[in-house]
Amino acid sequence: MSRHLKIASAQLGPLHLSDTRSSATKRLVNLLREAHGMGAKFVVFPELAFTTFFPRYWYDSQTEADSKFYEASIPSAETQPLFDEAKKLGIGFYIGYAELTQEEGRTHRFNTAILVGPDGTLVGKYRKIHLPGHAEHKPQAAFQHLEKKYFEVGNLGFRVWRFMDTITGMLICNDRRWPEAFRVLALQGAEIVALGFNTPSENLHYPEPPALRVHHHLIMAQSMAFQNATWLVETAKCGFEDGNRMFGHSVIVAPTGEIAAQSLTEEDEVICVNADIDLAANLKRTMFDFAAHRRPEHYQLIVERVGAEVTPAKGP
Amino acid sequence: MSRHLKIASAQLGPLHLSDTRSSATKRLVNLLREAHGMGAKFVVFPELAFTTFFPRYWYDSQTEADSKFYEASIPSAETQPLFDEAKKLGIGFYIGYAELTQEEGRTHRFNTAILVGPDGTLVGKYRKIHLPGHAEHKPQAAFQHLEKKYFEVGNLGFRVWRFMDTITGMLICNDRRWPEAFRVLALQGAEIVALGFNTPSENLHYPEPPALRVHHHLIMAQSMAFQNATWLVETAKCGFEDGNRMFGHSVIVAPTGEIAAQSLTEEDEVICVNADIDLAANLKRTMFDFAAHRRPEHYQLIVERVGAEVTPAKGP
Repeated sequence: MSRHLKIASAQLGPLHLSDTRSSATKRLVNLLREAHGMGAKFVVFPELAFTTFFPRYWYDSQTEADSKFYEASIPSAETQPLFDEAKKLGIGFYIGYAELTQEEGRTHRFNTAILVGPDGTLVGKYRKIHLPGHAEHKPQAAFQHLEKKYFEVGNLGFRVWRFMDTITGMLICNDRRWPEAFRVLALQGAEIVALGFNTPSENLHYPEPPALRVHHHLIMAQSMAFQNATWLVETAKCGFEDGNRMFGHSVIVAPTGEIAAQSLTEEDEVICVNADIDLAANLKRTMFDFAAHRRPEHYQLIVERVGAEVTPAKGP
Repeated sequence: MSRHLKIASAQLGPLHLSDTRSSATKRLVNLLREAHGMGAKFVVFPELAFTTFFPRYWYDSQTEADSKFYEASIPSAETQPLFDEAKKLGIGFYIGYAELTQEEGRTHRFNTAILVGPDGTLVGKYRKIHLPGHAEHKPQAAFQHLEKKYFEVGNLGFRVWRFMDTITGMLICNDRRWPEAFRVLALQGAEIVALGFNTPSENLHYPEPPALRVHHHLIMAQSMAFQNATWLVETAKCGFEDGNRMFGHSVIVAPTGEIAAQSLTEEDEVICVNADIDLAANLKRTMFDFAAHRRPEHYQLIVERVGAEVTPAKGP
């Protein structure tokens, strides 16, 4: 008997600098209710879902940034209504936020996502490992991408959890560009990968057609889902945040590498799929039977080398 | 000043059991001349390019298979005309063949590809690492996929070579489904990855729409080229070989993840692109600056574990 789970991707339109956590939470609750109306049992919200995508702004004062954008506790008084409503409706969810925490005697800041069970329990936490962008101010650029300034590299690894009768892993945004991240989850038996993102429509570093950036997003989502034989749910925060455009194209991708559902706006929008969690069973016992086909003895460079080094062979 | 190289993918239509090496070589020479007429300097031919895709057949006698399908020397008297013509035209090429060799006192068989310089020198050799299919006879199946019977796992690793003012790596067929293979090449500075393939239109193991199999091929090709910021040339042998259909869709993919050229038949066909080898320079200094963004300390499972093991985290 195959297992099915109704999974929704709940995309957020723009959150501006002036928007409050309460107004964001109200919209998240509305999206949750809409997903519930579609029968969803698991809802994936975006990365950094309670505020505008603040790494685009330089703040001289980290204290100011801390007070504006980070969560010192989750839930907080302002975000509590989302957790209450999810528990009331019996819906599990993934959500991303900027985490401010005291650990081992000092302050840490992470780009974090959590997995919350339908009974309201905290099932899992992931802290983003592949931080994109830069740490230094680029005053000449149209906008910044300061994730390397505002966050530490995540210290919890790539993990999966038993979640709603599935094995579910979490990633965040830029992780979706790194095959290593998906592979580490797949090697632990991931059946679903949940991922929220904020992706500018324009390339900060050099001119690039916005449509090409969406193309990258879509080919990677399909290929990573297929090559790892997992369901993949990628949810955007998108639209014009104070004039800064980010693309939507939230997707739910099957382990067949097919887009099962895709958002069509850059606004608050829910898409939902009745996912057959066992759809990848044939794939996992044949083409992607890792035990039969993988050859780690030839993969050593993946962990031995960080950057690319031009090292051609000396002979044939 | 950017470097350009005119690269061709020279796709082969079917080779039947009754076809000789000489007739195959004649067709390869014709494809080479056509590529030359398009200005190509580097031509990528298919996997196992001199015979029918024989792993679909069970032979009780390996001696019989050896005599029918393997090359004890490359070039041989029959295949020499291809090497002569390439040298005459000043074209470098990749070609795949079944290698029969005596090494360390015993007989070895590999699914092999070589890179030959425009001056006729042997630049590099690759022996296929990801052998798909099975080793045992499946008499109930419509056809076999006996690469695990007919070949040993390649023992030369994933390597790159200085080749025609580029850094070029080689893979073969099923390697294209394994992100690890591309990544090991990219970490050595690969700018071009050449790959030949033979891929049945039907799934041996379970029913699957043939179009879905082509979809997998195309999403992986685009995603692997982009995520590793390399040019990728994938060349099919295709069409009905003695009634067994294999798909075409040979592609030349840019490091932007865009298909720059694609074959449109399941017959002998050449496609050619004037490839800007430096097209990935921006990508490599920003989004895919491996040194800045990769986190191998979190990738250990890729080399520590072969098969997938369901190992959820114990707590949040």
